[in-house]
Amino acid sequence: MDIRKHFLHQLDELRERVLYMGGLVETAVHHSLHAVTDRKPELADLVTEEIEPEINHLEVEIDERALQLMALQQPLAVDLRFVAAALKIGNDLERMGDLAVNIAKGAPRLLSQPLAAPLVDLPLMAERANRMLRSSLDALMNRNSELARAVLESDDEVDAMRDLIFRQLIQSMTQDPTLVERSLGLLFIARNLERIADHATNIAEEVIFWIEGIDVRHHFAEAPPT
Amino acid sequence: MDIRKHFLHQLDELRERVLYMGGLVETAVHHSLHAVTDRKPELADLVTEEIEPEINHLEVEIDERALQLMALQQPLAVDLRFVAAALKIGNDLERMGDLAVNIAKGAPRLLSQPLAAPLVDLPLMAERANRMLRSSLDALMNRNSELARAVLESDDEVDAMRDLIFRQLIQSMTQDPTLVERSLGLLFIARNLERIADHATNIAEEVIFWIEGIDVRHHFAEAPPT
Repeated sequence: MDIRKHFLHQLDELRERVLYMGGLVETAVHHSLHAVTDRKPELADLVTEEIEPEINHLEVEIDERALQLMALQQPLAVDLRFVAAALKIGNDLERMGDLAVNIAKGAPRLLSQPLAAPLVDLPLMAERANRMLRSSLDALMNRNSELARAVLESDDEVDAMRDLIFRQLIQSMTQDPTLVERSLGLLFIARNLERIADHATNIAEEVIFWIEGIDVRHHFAEAPPT
Repeated sequence: MDIRKHFLHQLDELRERVLYMGGLVETAVHHSLHAVTDRKPELADLVTEEIEPEINHLEVEIDERALQLMALQQPLAVDLRFVAAALKIGNDLERMGDLAVNIAKGAPRLLSQPLAAPLVDLPLMAERANRMLRSSLDALMNRNSELARAVLESDDEVDAMRDLIFRQLIQSMTQDPTLVERSLGLLFIARNLERIADHATNIAEEVIFWIEGIDVRHHFAEAPPT
């Protein structure tokens, strides 16, 4: 195998590992929420004990691969941007894993109480956040910056869902103080899902930067690129 | 100036920009909290309108400097680790800026109500989180990995403070439902401060990785390195 081929092969491998890590994060988000909504604490344990440790391990592996590539192959332009993006995406995915663990760790407490507080639209919000992650990863896999741009727009929807859920939960707490603790538990899930969506947005931005060399952070809100 | 000197000069410049960005983040955290505790909404505006945009701008600048250094100078070993650490630290600092903005944006609402809910120990928690950031930055400036390791230990203290504050606020909400909204506001401040401390911990880990080449993420809790 000549040097260039070997280099391209290493880049592909790096991308595959990032995509694999992304798939694990999707599973973690899904399981952590369904531990609560389907009252299945074993799903929460799976996230905390099995999936998240593997996610953490992958972040370290991806960092090592990226730094090795930079040191040994000294990539330039689009390849360098890809390696830098992989470093950052690995970091985002690791934090998404932490957020899923936050949700999972809150599950036993929520499950120990009767399901009196409304479950509001958390499953819909989780599904939307996971769809953003899936699209970001598809954009990474298929080098599709249009798909990545669509993710940036979805973030506002998720924020609107969070606002609605917050209003509903605050109302229920105010009307019935015995609901404070469990409503707070749900409110924290909404908060964690919102942050999961934020990280999916970061990943989409990193994919756009890789493909187009354009830094869309901190600009999108004011002037959406066309 | 010979090539090596020029390279070292660029590394120093990169570090100075990271340190400058870190100083802005400290100010943002301090002002956003004091907007609430000292009832000074103008401090919140300062964070949102002046400081955070500059923090965002610095993240982009640091990314560009780091990528340029990687492309043109192809640093190796400890230098490569430093450039990679600068990329990550810039990212952490930018998110800390966002968290300070979260606190600042909640200020007007909290200030529109009488200060009936206890302010608990938010100022102490903010001061502790900022001290962690300051130590991480000092460790970066002085290449002092011992100082960075001390930061990792402080994180547990901040988490304990958050637990105490949460308990106090939940109790006050449960006893008096009219306090729900403002207690929630304080609770979110505690949550944001906790995450600010988490990012300070990340920075300390990145400094250790730079200096020692040892990845302490995901291991510290089980077996503190000696």
